[in-house]
Amino acid sequence: MNDIFSDRIKNVPKSFIREILKVIDDPEIISFAGGLPNKDLFPVEEIRKAADYQFDNFGKEVLQYSTTEGYLPLRQYIADRFNKRNNLNISVDEVLITHGSQQALDLIGKIFLNDEDCIVIEEPGYLGAIQCLSVFSKNFKTIKLNDDGLNLEELEKILEKYSPKLLYVVPNFQNPSGITYTNQNREEIANILKRYNTYLIEDDPYGELRFEGEQANTFKKLLPEKSIILGSFSKIVAPGFRLGWVIAPKEVMSNLVIAKQAADLHSNYVGQRIIYQFLKDNELDKHISKIKERYGSQKRAMIESIKKHFPKNIKYTNPEGGMFLWVTLPNNYSAMELFEKTIKAKVAFVPGDPFYVNKTNVNTLRINYSCSDEQTIEEGIKRLASCIKELVV
Amino acid sequence: MNDIFSDRIKNVPKSFIREILKVIDDPEIISFAGGLPNKDLFPVEEIRKAADYQFDNFGKEVLQYSTTEGYLPLRQYIADRFNKRNNLNISVDEVLITHGSQQALDLIGKIFLNDEDCIVIEEPGYLGAIQCLSVFSKNFKTIKLNDDGLNLEELEKILEKYSPKLLYVVPNFQNPSGITYTNQNREEIANILKRYNTYLIEDDPYGELRFEGEQANTFKKLLPEKSIILGSFSKIVAPGFRLGWVIAPKEVMSNLVIAKQAADLHSNYVGQRIIYQFLKDNELDKHISKIKERYGSQKRAMIESIKKHFPKNIKYTNPEGGMFLWVTLPNNYSAMELFEKTIKAKVAFVPGDPFYVNKTNVNTLRINYSCSDEQTIEEGIKRLASCIKELVV
Repeated sequence: MNDIFSDRIKNVPKSFIREILKVIDDPEIISFAGGLPNKDLFPVEEIRKAADYQFDNFGKEVLQYSTTEGYLPLRQYIADRFNKRNNLNISVDEVLITHGSQQALDLIGKIFLNDEDCIVIEEPGYLGAIQCLSVFSKNFKTIKLNDDGLNLEELEKILEKYSPKLLYVVPNFQNPSGITYTNQNREEIANILKRYNTYLIEDDPYGELRFEGEQANTFKKLLPEKSIILGSFSKIVAPGFRLGWVIAPKEVMSNLVIAKQAADLHSNYVGQRIIYQFLKDNELDKHISKIKERYGSQKRAMIESIKKHFPKNIKYTNPEGGMFLWVTLPNNYSAMELFEKTIKAKVAFVPGDPFYVNKTNVNTLRINYSCSDEQTIEEGIKRLASCIKELVV
Repeated sequence: MNDIFSDRIKNVPKSFIREILKVIDDPEIISFAGGLPNKDLFPVEEIRKAADYQFDNFGKEVLQYSTTEGYLPLRQYIADRFNKRNNLNISVDEVLITHGSQQALDLIGKIFLNDEDCIVIEEPGYLGAIQCLSVFSKNFKTIKLNDDGLNLEELEKILEKYSPKLLYVVPNFQNPSGITYTNQNREEIANILKRYNTYLIEDDPYGELRFEGEQANTFKKLLPEKSIILGSFSKIVAPGFRLGWVIAPKEVMSNLVIAKQAADLHSNYVGQRIIYQFLKDNELDKHISKIKERYGSQKRAMIESIKKHFPKNIKYTNPEGGMFLWVTLPNNYSAMELFEKTIKAKVAFVPGDPFYVNKTNVNTLRINYSCSDEQTIEEGIKRLASCIKELVV
């Protein structure tokens, strides 16, 4: 009876990380595997107050059905903040509230992709995007991610050869690599894309979490008519609401709204109202600076520990923001093999495999620093370093 | 550039009701067009308390990411209540929390339907289901809805001829007709389906809102291996959370979980925790009986007014629960034409057209009674009756 299911669902990869998180359900394990924001920084009390205010003053309204596009004042807040940060002038009509950026991707897949249509992503790439978009097409092409951004030669070749409909990128503090595209790389990408009929999706969950360096240009500035920007409250407020947004040009937006309505009518309204009230009553910048301070000092602790303990032939990225860094073992060493060792040594990470479309036993791994304090980081990296030394001679 | 979009999105009908609701944005209009639960019955104070309790005691946890399947105690509550109401024994593993039943339908469409696969729905049928499933296939067949449920001859013919993958029904107080399938009709449907490779989707948002008569059997009892049950908190607690659930057999569930994860990772956790706390601290049955009392007396008022004012050749259903009744004009009269008249007379309803897959200018209309008090109902039906008399000679 199994053949009653659709072709599309048979090809969706299961979440590898979910499987890994099951393995490491041991409190003695130091885990750098997760991808969660640090819960100690959630503004619990402020959110409780915001919820009370909304229930006390607008209870019946807040609990009723609402509009597909989302709560207008919240969409306006998002547009205003985006405009201020980027010196742009998008309108509230270009903003749709979604159940996280993951849903925005699902809607984008739905409205753009026929079965064989080509999608381009970074290598390594965000596995949630691979999983989500593979529901709609299997036809992925990848472009190597260099330290400054996309490999432009590969980009040009792929655009020329495969006429992809979508190019998915995470240009700020990429998941999994922690790499940020330089402004020059972004400009060159935009200039190349102007010659093709391809939309660029800029997924930007971490952009506000920059603890070093200068903010780079959003593609909305460089390629306004062909850029779709995804944002989320998950990393700057809290993920439990499952609220994010998509900023898209008009003709894309009208299709997104139809798809959103078909998918779940509208995003949870109680959550939209609570977050809006929180944003109204509190200074988001102040809250974000606390997060940046913490993640920044944890990242620096991790880099220090790596410098001290890792063998010299191990490469790693040094992100200016976000939650992850990326380690590359010498060629021919398997991160999966390393993982088996480190679990016994009570430290965990995510082997690189799920971040590649068609590769296994890769020599790369993702390490998260947002959820461990400096002492734990030092101890975890020490354990990881001994395992690396055992494996890599 | 419009041809960059997918074939599937080009065929999704826009929400007709949304367009209608725009027309009637006039406070003087008595609207029987909506499909909303009555907001005066929302348990605002109890929900505020439940929210406070969760934020005060589990704030960091409630605001974090969570599991794809949903909050375990909430899933257990749903399974227990379903078992108790139906004298069944489903397990918590058969329950997935979704962003409303609309999302459950979206996930079902995703995991079952290839482009040309056949879907069967009632005529008239729920327009949200038509909209949602048409994202995945255009191949709809319809079965006439009789006063006792599905026309069995048509069902058998369609199953034989088209081998549909899915049969979508709303057997309790159907939207739009208010019709409830008899137990006999349900048993006959189940017996027929046992001979075919078709899953039945029982969408049951209103089943608990029975103010007259006896509860009928769920298809989960009659056809346990091939039934998928959709439920929702929208009509029994509040729709603002966008929380519902799907109950499905194991092999369906494992695919639904993959699709849910790809779609939006998990349902909003803050909402799940608040609703769970509300259910724990309050007697849901007591709350529901308040809703039933109100909707029941409003329905009776509407039936009385109809009897008093409508011409005798107008047919209408007399639902035992739910929120809608269904009016049939004599043949060859158009409900759309009636609508144009009634708007001028300051009363609104939904013309039947969007509830049909391929018909327009039908002679049927949907009237909602959940949101108007008895006096307003009397006045609105009076206005409606005069327009009908003008149109139908």
